[in-house]
Amino acid sequence: MSIIVNRRDLDFLLYETLGLDELLQAPRFADYDRDAIGAIFDLSQSIAEDVFQPFAAKLDANEPEYVDGKVEMIPEVRDALDAYKEAGLFTTAYDADIGGMQLPWMAHQALNAMFVCANTSVSNYVFLTQGAANMLNACGSQALKQTFLPKMRDGEWFGTMCLSEPQAGSSLGDIRTKAEELADGRYKITGTKMWISGGDHELTENIVHMVLAKIPGSPAGVKGISLFLVPKHRVNDDGSLGESNNVALAGLNHKMGHRGTTNCLLNFGEEGDTVGYLVGEQNQGLANMFHMMNEARIGVGMAATVIGLGGYLYSLDYARNRPQGRHLSNKDPESPMVMISEHADIKRLLMTQKAYVEGALSLLYFSAKLLDLIKISDSQQEKQRLNLLLELLTPICKSWPSEFCLEANKHAIQVLGGYGYTREYPVERLYRDNRLNHIHEGTHAIHGLDIMGRKVTMANGAALKVLTAEITSTIDEASAVPELVGYCHDLGGALETVQETLDAVSKAEDPALALANATVFLDAMGHVVIAWMWLKQAVAASKGLAASVEADEDFYQGKLAACQFFYRHELPKAIGQFNLVATLDDTCFNLCAEQFIGT
Amino acid sequence: MSIIVNRRDLDFLLYETLGLDELLQAPRFADYDRDAIGAIFDLSQSIAEDVFQPFAAKLDANEPEYVDGKVEMIPEVRDALDAYKEAGLFTTAYDADIGGMQLPWMAHQALNAMFVCANTSVSNYVFLTQGAANMLNACGSQALKQTFLPKMRDGEWFGTMCLSEPQAGSSLGDIRTKAEELADGRYKITGTKMWISGGDHELTENIVHMVLAKIPGSPAGVKGISLFLVPKHRVNDDGSLGESNNVALAGLNHKMGHRGTTNCLLNFGEEGDTVGYLVGEQNQGLANMFHMMNEARIGVGMAATVIGLGGYLYSLDYARNRPQGRHLSNKDPESPMVMISEHADIKRLLMTQKAYVEGALSLLYFSAKLLDLIKISDSQQEKQRLNLLLELLTPICKSWPSEFCLEANKHAIQVLGGYGYTREYPVERLYRDNRLNHIHEGTHAIHGLDIMGRKVTMANGAALKVLTAEITSTIDEASAVPELVGYCHDLGGALETVQETLDAVSKAEDPALALANATVFLDAMGHVVIAWMWLKQAVAASKGLAASVEADEDFYQGKLAACQFFYRHELPKAIGQFNLVATLDDTCFNLCAEQFIGT
Repeated sequence: MSIIVNRRDLDFLLYETLGLDELLQAPRFADYDRDAIGAIFDLSQSIAEDVFQPFAAKLDANEPEYVDGKVEMIPEVRDALDAYKEAGLFTTAYDADIGGMQLPWMAHQALNAMFVCANTSVSNYVFLTQGAANMLNACGSQALKQTFLPKMRDGEWFGTMCLSEPQAGSSLGDIRTKAEELADGRYKITGTKMWISGGDHELTENIVHMVLAKIPGSPAGVKGISLFLVPKHRVNDDGSLGESNNVALAGLNHKMGHRGTTNCLLNFGEEGDTVGYLVGEQNQGLANMFHMMNEARIGVGMAATVIGLGGYLYSLDYARNRPQGRHLSNKDPESPMVMISEHADIKRLLMTQKAYVEGALSLLYFSAKLLDLIKISDSQQEKQRLNLLLELLTPICKSWPSEFCLEANKHAIQVLGGYGYTREYPVERLYRDNRLNHIHEGTHAIHGLDIMGRKVTMANGAALKVLTAEITSTIDEASAVPELVGYCHDLGGALETVQETLDAVSKAEDPALALANATVFLDAMGHVVIAWMWLKQAVAASKGLAASVEADEDFYQGKLAACQFFYRHELPKAIGQFNLVATLDDTCFNLCAEQFIGT
Repeated sequence: MSIIVNRRDLDFLLYETLGLDELLQAPRFADYDRDAIGAIFDLSQSIAEDVFQPFAAKLDANEPEYVDGKVEMIPEVRDALDAYKEAGLFTTAYDADIGGMQLPWMAHQALNAMFVCANTSVSNYVFLTQGAANMLNACGSQALKQTFLPKMRDGEWFGTMCLSEPQAGSSLGDIRTKAEELADGRYKITGTKMWISGGDHELTENIVHMVLAKIPGSPAGVKGISLFLVPKHRVNDDGSLGESNNVALAGLNHKMGHRGTTNCLLNFGEEGDTVGYLVGEQNQGLANMFHMMNEARIGVGMAATVIGLGGYLYSLDYARNRPQGRHLSNKDPESPMVMISEHADIKRLLMTQKAYVEGALSLLYFSAKLLDLIKISDSQQEKQRLNLLLELLTPICKSWPSEFCLEANKHAIQVLGGYGYTREYPVERLYRDNRLNHIHEGTHAIHGLDIMGRKVTMANGAALKVLTAEITSTIDEASAVPELVGYCHDLGGALETVQETLDAVSKAEDPALALANATVFLDAMGHVVIAWMWLKQAVAASKGLAASVEADEDFYQGKLAACQFFYRHELPKAIGQFNLVATLDDTCFNLCAEQFIGT
């Protein structure tokens, strides 16, 4: 079986649960039908399995090295990226007007997910490039786009995002990288950027950095941040490569996972002039960056999810083929051993993974669909409604999988026992890879502040109203299925608890205390949303069962069981967490640092 | 500050909370007073910090290698173990009758914990040797002991435990290693052992393997397992080393963590005869192994805890010295940044670590004290009572820290952000090291079956009655402190929930269904026990505050805050889990493997 994708489940999620087929009716996607998309998935799966997956462990064990100021890495990385490029897959991320395939974002996410699952470290180069190119396309001048976009679109040049600095990670307002305007309208860039994934390598002739910096005299804090395009090599007017732009690789960070992706400390303008091009308006850098943030954050959530999926599929396959022990009721030590998938706790470990991973997948495809719907809708009001929903879901899309699909990876190791803890099996690598996702693209805490301090209250709570209406609509549909009525009741109750919690918190006199447990709220809110996703899947599975051929019965029954599991084992946890948040607990908030240790 | 031990807290736990000073009144410990033990701790801390800790990261990055059938490793390992040996610390694990220091087990655990925290991989060699030696002492013949014990006691020869085989990990009844009696009463050993930590190396002249094997004709399953002592090199009658005993290193496993400890696949009797010596009676191998199991399992729990402690102390120190961002109420971007320990969510991440780690430490020292009390008690009835309590607590001692102090390590990484995810900082290594502890010395699931299927019901529930009485006694004491009355109520309620849960489960018609959620019960039961430990600490902190010098006030207030945190944020989770277990949920139990994926 494939351990990077469950195609049956992908069909179930995209078509039976989330209605990709409806999207395909839109003129925007006139080039595609289900067969065409299936063919792209086939192609993607075969490249991911044949070219990306085989050297994931080797790359992890042989990370890129810094040699004489340059990066050396095993040649398989370039070969894999070449295969991806030659298949034209780089262009799946773009619209037709810039030469892209204009695939539904749902489908783009699904095919890219296979590469992330197969070899996360290599896939990072692709997604950073696509993210940077989309940002340039959204905010850059025609001249800039003309020079850089076609190369990035085709994967000839890669891209990066340069936000953090050694002294400023979460606190972007404190960045110090400086951009001084030159006589010709370009900018001289000086400063140091930290944690730059793909920040240097020899995989492509050029690298296009999207850099946040401050123009002297601009306002303090985030209001004075501008966005610049800074190429590794300057580009001549005829498009040919010019001299070095003096972006110096100062060193590589050595991570626990994602080892195949170079992660760099970069110095700008230290060894000679580094020139950059303003992208968008001055002092609009953060806003421009945020143009791409929803997509990027859904991308991080998807990465967290499919790294979880890889562990789930691998451990499931292992459990079905590893004999060990006997049923508890069997006291005969001479009887044959059973497969460990027969043991109740192994089933629990597998089911927990399934509930987390397939629940998260559903949310991420749902959110990708929102991006598609926003593009095809011709009603401003509807666009606004969809945008509100997407804004509210984004911190959950990014954070919930980071937390719970990492937990899934922990369980995958446990299924394999001692074997799972060794590098001879992939599950420990997936666990290491996934631990990053709480940290980058906004830490877990920042997303807590985002959802609780901004998203649930913005526009007088309009986003939460949209979400509530959407969930209520699913509840209404599910109520017609007798087996699902109990879940409808539970989910409706959870929605009430959310509102009660927010009402209680709104009474806090100190707004900082109101947000002191925002991360707890974030996780709990995620559970409500995933419970909704499982109800959606249960409705689809019920329909499927009613119309099913026998071959699909196990599949649908498994979906209904996973829904039951989530409502019995998981959703109650969220209710407890909401109750805690509602008390405005100040235990940690009031503590001073000395009390942790006594000195 | 030290990042391997908080001596103020160690004093608080050992003396103020758990009464080590009372133990020291016993004749068995007449050689020791608080000053003497403090001096041993000073010595241990300085060796652990000066000799063990400095190369932990280097060892992790340069794991032992298999070269021409032998193990090569960096020389610092031997130097560190020599320093430990020369300080006489190997003998802290033994009674005076075999030349040991006869230290209270509480103190032995405390000093060893410093070495585990400083360098887990190196400390493993010590504890495996002490475990094997104690097993030999408990079960071996005089002749065997005379030959092997002094060398092991002094750390001249190291020891191992050889239980698992490639096809039999949790299912020990299925081991295939064979022991055929020779004419001279020795045994010829043939077979393969897997996951043998310290299974081969050149650190000592000899290695003493404690091996489980089956004598042909013995009963099937666990009833036919015997225990053998198998040296790497044979030992002549005069005690000098003889020829090789043909224990062949077939390969090294490459783990996610614990990289400095060799982990071996060993072949016995493949390249020539391997001889072994029966330890204890035939077919009593598992029972003999279990002689040491309580100590070993408490040791694993302690390792999990202090790996968590290392992350907590490091991330606390980091948070107090890393400026980033401002208070939420401060909108002036030009004001100075604050230390991240000022941010509410960082405090939550630190407090969660403190509550888990110091709660677990308390339990492990309490359990170590039980081992001491069993030895000094002169009442058979009291010994039995203490043994019951220890038996019940052992699966929790081993498992709760494995789960929740790993969670603490996850949080430590989060406090450091991107830095925490790199190998330039120790917290990711601690996270990798700690992931093992769910797996070895009985998996998490096995301890769930142990506590729910055996420990809570054994002797008509006598062990649970002892635990309930102990907890009730703490509640009675705490009830006298007005600030603690709420916790007393909560903990009393939790005890009732435990009983109601077990009553509900006992009505299951299928015993296997009753145990289907045993792991959930195990975690929840651990939460109740840790809540008890926090109430104990709160009582001690209240006393301390009443009598306190000003310098200690922060320390005691921090303890009270951690207790409050545990009762508000954690204990309610356990109540939810008990409620789930009480429903006899069969979601996973009834699932067949095909339903996970549909094929």
